[in-house]
Amino acid sequence: MNARRLHDLATPALVVDADALDHNLRTIAAALPGPRMRPHVKAHKCSALAARQAAAGHRTFTCATIREAEVLAGAGLGDDILLANEVLDTRRLGTLIDNESARITVAVDSPETVAAAAAGGVPEVVIDVNVGLPRCGCPPDQAGRLADEARSRGLEVRGVMGYEGHVVGLDDRAERVRMTADCMALLLQAHVDVGGDLVSAGGTGTYDINTWANEIQAGSYALMDTAYDRLGLPFRQALTVLATVISTSAQGWAVADCGLKAFGMDHGNPTVVDPAGAAVWFLSDEHITFAAGSHPTTQPGTQPATHPPPAVGDRIRVVPAHVDPTIAYHERMHVVSGDDVLETWPIDMRGW
Amino acid sequence: MNARRLHDLATPALVVDADALDHNLRTIAAALPGPRMRPHVKAHKCSALAARQAAAGHRTFTCATIREAEVLAGAGLGDDILLANEVLDTRRLGTLIDNESARITVAVDSPETVAAAAAGGVPEVVIDVNVGLPRCGCPPDQAGRLADEARSRGLEVRGVMGYEGHVVGLDDRAERVRMTADCMALLLQAHVDVGGDLVSAGGTGTYDINTWANEIQAGSYALMDTAYDRLGLPFRQALTVLATVISTSAQGWAVADCGLKAFGMDHGNPTVVDPAGAAVWFLSDEHITFAAGSHPTTQPGTQPATHPPPAVGDRIRVVPAHVDPTIAYHERMHVVSGDDVLETWPIDMRGW
Repeated sequence: MNARRLHDLATPALVVDADALDHNLRTIAAALPGPRMRPHVKAHKCSALAARQAAAGHRTFTCATIREAEVLAGAGLGDDILLANEVLDTRRLGTLIDNESARITVAVDSPETVAAAAAGGVPEVVIDVNVGLPRCGCPPDQAGRLADEARSRGLEVRGVMGYEGHVVGLDDRAERVRMTADCMALLLQAHVDVGGDLVSAGGTGTYDINTWANEIQAGSYALMDTAYDRLGLPFRQALTVLATVISTSAQGWAVADCGLKAFGMDHGNPTVVDPAGAAVWFLSDEHITFAAGSHPTTQPGTQPATHPPPAVGDRIRVVPAHVDPTIAYHERMHVVSGDDVLETWPIDMRGW
Repeated sequence: MNARRLHDLATPALVVDADALDHNLRTIAAALPGPRMRPHVKAHKCSALAARQAAAGHRTFTCATIREAEVLAGAGLGDDILLANEVLDTRRLGTLIDNESARITVAVDSPETVAAAAAGGVPEVVIDVNVGLPRCGCPPDQAGRLADEARSRGLEVRGVMGYEGHVVGLDDRAERVRMTADCMALLLQAHVDVGGDLVSAGGTGTYDINTWANEIQAGSYALMDTAYDRLGLPFRQALTVLATVISTSAQGWAVADCGLKAFGMDHGNPTVVDPAGAAVWFLSDEHITFAAGSHPTTQPGTQPATHPPPAVGDRIRVVPAHVDPTIAYHERMHVVSGDDVLETWPIDMRGW
């Protein structure tokens, strides 16, 4: 199944640049060594990539689904898994804890989720606190009462989490700094009432801003996407979709074989990066229609480059706008260096 | 794995209403009996559903990927598969034709795709003609020449196809009628030059409009989505995503466990249909945040209904805006009648 050369891969194919991935893993490990970083696996859903994150020093993981926790535990990465989400169907987690010796902590934000953790045999929880994103989390001033309720049911309360998800993607860094401070003031207020060791928060866009949390739940930094690339972070774009031009038109467009089933589309169209200067017109289920442009190179001392129009059979490279729902469509990712396929990793945490 | 009651299903789950599906299959079979309808499996990617379409009289199928052709052939549904897309990696198809006794016809629109069909051992082709959608298909006036080239390479040219994809979703039926006529004039002009038995086109939005094509490639009609539901077609919404409310807020929103990895988002947000009157605010990777409204019933003689606010543990039903990229995220669909789960079908044509 592993083609050993990039150009032998069947398309569409998820391709990870080995150097860029290594750079991203090194960069975050330097900034947030060991347990200061709790990588969120929802971004890549790949236990082989999680193993790389563990090898970089992070053996604590964040996940969003029970399936992700199951696969992490099965891959020997179950030292300390935080399911940073509310779940009611906790029996599967309890089974994992019993059978696999995985340590799993689940987020709770209501009496119902506390009761589910207790009933499902998940003995450790964090209190999920709403810090401004209209999603999960209890109001900050109710966190202490919920922690008391959890403890009264015999649960261990490890601390608090509160995700500033409405802040991590803001373009203006000063705004991210200001709003993260506001969010974390709420989380720390709750932490006073809750106690416990963990103050868990943050994402790729606030990994070096959120100094209030004592662990950061970033995920996208490993592979990146065009949405995060806008923010000027020190992470490189590691992920592209490799596709094949299957049709061209004398009227100026070309069509390649990656479409709506190869890209999460909630952040808009993906970007064709090779050939450079291509403009995406639209995507259909299995197609991307784009116009290949020509653009001057900006490297001093070189001539403006023009790109010949795409030909049937050409390979193109496309960067997703949103990494998480893109990867969830694919079965595997290929780690490449230049034209060599070094490894092929199953995306084994897909589904629920 | 098969829970037998709807409320036992782990969420998020794709749920198909058995009655609505049967209605849709009967409706199209009455309008387009037997080979007048060539169901497009890209919409559902499920061989068990394709078997239902075959049982309704349609044993010819349309697909968009090699994987779809492989799974159809393996499921005994390979009588006459049209891969209505350009492919260069034709060896897999040739292997299928040799090993499985599947009959597979592939679309070609260029000398390169003709050469690929010949080299890959795919002896039958249709000439794909561009009828206005900027995607695949040769210009109508070049179709005859391409057919000659295919025949000179020993290929059997079965006819033409040309998809009016820019027309099928238009809200105004009169506009769909007018534009379909224009598109099919181009296709029939090409057919004169190409010859062969097949004039293949159409979709759910033109299934009863496109009387020029002699077979219709509709797919969405079986399960439907909110985009097609706007058009006032006689097909019922058969597909919902079942989700569980995992968090609520005193400020008026609730959160359920279906997000960006459960819905194709290119047509916008999905619609919460139960509870009625709910307004979707936004989706995150594994969450939908919505406000539950109350709305007056429009049924004469009944009292306006008000809906209590959602509670943690409630189940909600959500209709996707675009069926095809929604299903591609899921592993299985559950066919239900009321609260009974009748069957669970693997979505076995996912991937490429």
